[in-house]
Amino acid sequence: MPYAGRMSNADLFINKLERARVAAKTLATVTTAQKNAALEAIAVALENSVPEIVAENAKDLAAGEANGIGDGLLDRLRLDDARLRGLAAAVRDVIALPDPIGEVLRGSTLANGIRINQVRVPFGVVGAIYEARPNVTIDIAALALKSGNGAVLRGGSAAENSNRALVALIQRALTSVGLAGDAVQTIDEFGREGAGRLMRARGYVDVLIPRGSAGLISTVVQESTVPVIETGSGIVHVYVDATADADMAAAIVTNAKTHRPSVCNAAETLLVHRDAAERMLPRLARELLGAGVTVFGDEATRAQVPEVAAADDETWATEHLALEMGVRIVDSIDEAIAHIERYSTHHTESIVTQDYANAERFLAEVDSAVVMVNASTRFTDGGEFGFGAEVGISTQKLHARGPMGLSELTSTKWLVRGGGQIR
Amino acid sequence: MPYAGRMSNADLFINKLERARVAAKTLATVTTAQKNAALEAIAVALENSVPEIVAENAKDLAAGEANGIGDGLLDRLRLDDARLRGLAAAVRDVIALPDPIGEVLRGSTLANGIRINQVRVPFGVVGAIYEARPNVTIDIAALALKSGNGAVLRGGSAAENSNRALVALIQRALTSVGLAGDAVQTIDEFGREGAGRLMRARGYVDVLIPRGSAGLISTVVQESTVPVIETGSGIVHVYVDATADADMAAAIVTNAKTHRPSVCNAAETLLVHRDAAERMLPRLARELLGAGVTVFGDEATRAQVPEVAAADDETWATEHLALEMGVRIVDSIDEAIAHIERYSTHHTESIVTQDYANAERFLAEVDSAVVMVNASTRFTDGGEFGFGAEVGISTQKLHARGPMGLSELTSTKWLVRGGGQIR
Repeated sequence: MPYAGRMSNADLFINKLERARVAAKTLATVTTAQKNAALEAIAVALENSVPEIVAENAKDLAAGEANGIGDGLLDRLRLDDARLRGLAAAVRDVIALPDPIGEVLRGSTLANGIRINQVRVPFGVVGAIYEARPNVTIDIAALALKSGNGAVLRGGSAAENSNRALVALIQRALTSVGLAGDAVQTIDEFGREGAGRLMRARGYVDVLIPRGSAGLISTVVQESTVPVIETGSGIVHVYVDATADADMAAAIVTNAKTHRPSVCNAAETLLVHRDAAERMLPRLARELLGAGVTVFGDEATRAQVPEVAAADDETWATEHLALEMGVRIVDSIDEAIAHIERYSTHHTESIVTQDYANAERFLAEVDSAVVMVNASTRFTDGGEFGFGAEVGISTQKLHARGPMGLSELTSTKWLVRGGGQIR
Repeated sequence: MPYAGRMSNADLFINKLERARVAAKTLATVTTAQKNAALEAIAVALENSVPEIVAENAKDLAAGEANGIGDGLLDRLRLDDARLRGLAAAVRDVIALPDPIGEVLRGSTLANGIRINQVRVPFGVVGAIYEARPNVTIDIAALALKSGNGAVLRGGSAAENSNRALVALIQRALTSVGLAGDAVQTIDEFGREGAGRLMRARGYVDVLIPRGSAGLISTVVQESTVPVIETGSGIVHVYVDATADADMAAAIVTNAKTHRPSVCNAAETLLVHRDAAERMLPRLARELLGAGVTVFGDEATRAQVPEVAAADDETWATEHLALEMGVRIVDSIDEAIAHIERYSTHHTESIVTQDYANAERFLAEVDSAVVMVNASTRFTDGGEFGFGAEVGISTQKLHARGPMGLSELTSTKWLVRGGGQIR
């Protein structure tokens, strides 16, 4: 490697990734106690560095305001005393999680006496691409470190100063307990080009996790030669079956839509069986309207509830992430399943029914990461499922599907112990 | 869809994939008994259709000879009575395997009474790209069907007639037991363009498995937007440590290199600790030479065994797949691990040693799918590991690593059963 001062951008980039890769290898074999000590050092540093981090964050906020980014983005970008203490607490939650590394998943003794064991090992280096959320820098780094991985983080130029300060803090914390600080790197300074390079950094980065908008995720999926875990895009459906209990349906639909509309497990489309619509559609629609939801209905819905706006073809294919919901009346469970098959992002779907056969059929035939009977879609969540950590919710079928815990940030290898056997 | 006779190539291609996708959905919920009946129908049809398939295969063989493809390729391409009966037997072996679908992997009851279960489900449609090996058409189709998946097969134009006959046989067998024949499709008629389209068929194909040369696999990895499981490329190392037993080392090295040199778990490079080299290098090298192996040694090796050819930088990065082997003397286990880290494809590596600490260190630090102590690398095999089926050997870290059984052709989903819970 040439002297860093004379390196091209491409060389500087590869140099960072190579340092992360080499450092990550050393993390693969350290003890849980060492990893927890590093995490505790990060938590303490977050608490002790509030003024410095807030000052760096202020630069990003000022630039964001000057660039006219919206209030929502500015809020996501902001770090203050309470949020930094919250991040420190989140890091301590990760300390409390069991270490997945070394777990023996399968093992046997072959007929010839060879003993084989499949054990959990780190991926190596986890790449993450996200946008203007500096808290994700700490979240992903903590989860990666606990699972023995390095991390290369592209958090976006809008949060560049905040991320640089946070990554420097993480690197110092690692070094302070004798671990390799290089294991965590930010590549924000390489701009958009850096994100593109990260997607093609096969051999340096073992898995890439995009977190953010559907557009960001789609770009990463299309352009990445590094294996990707797709997370978070949710066109989520609730289907109210003919036999649904009206109180239960109203509670689930309203909760699924309004409890936290900006997240991926919030419902976007309500499908109602024609028989149930007669009994309860006006109530369902008016509870939604009363909660401030803009409802876009098909013609049959509007015939029953005229104050509902008109849906168009876009309605069913939209992840609103807001107090907006499409409502469509269907003639049968088959039509509901077909609608879901066509429009769903295969994140979460829920049926509300009293009919055993329809419940089991919905569970069997709907091809989504999480399929529910008589429950709010908001329960699709690593915390709710008891995993303790929120790595993301995978909507792909390879490697991980649904809420991901720490063990989804690992690979496996086979250890084979023989006594001279040959074939 | 327009009438097939007027469709463009692109429409015909998508039409095939769409039919596979729709048919595969029906396979996801059929019973094991139905899938086994289909497999038995395939086995019977293979036995009863020998003359017809051999006649189609003869066309491919004649074209291959006319095109001057080598004897090895011609042999892989050939189907005869014995090989077709062997394929029927292999299909019956798949019948005997346990059905992975429906297995409950995890489950619990949440504090609010919601019951969650993670169950195995099929991927949907498995894509496979391979070259001139019509037996793979039956292998992959049988494994895909047993695991509830459809299959879209690109077996190469060199085997187009054979593959068309075999896929037609599979489709008739499926239909004969009341299952959707469309679940298995060949796309050989679309040529190279078809392979490219398959790699970009995200939404139609859930996972793509390339089987063949390193070049083929690398192309698929680079160009595919469908998730890929990388299989089979093996620059496999045996490291003979300072304390190795000479008889054991000779037996393992010779077996790993010569037992079946054309397969991915055959050893390609021998690393020998300097102390072991003094004791046994001439014997190791001469046993290899005596078995017909061309040995390429570094200078230190050639100083001890002059009849060895000279290695160059290419030697260590080559998957010979033939009776050829690189031999290098190293000063320490660290140097051996560093060499492996640099040149290995992370398939299988084995240490021969009597030293407990070095054995455990090699197991912990070598980052390969299978890491062995005192055993021939030839044991990296689904059959040897007791999986019953040979889907391939994954050299990637996502989803599956090492020998893959039927369960590696599956995804999972979470079934959530509630009683009206909301957050």
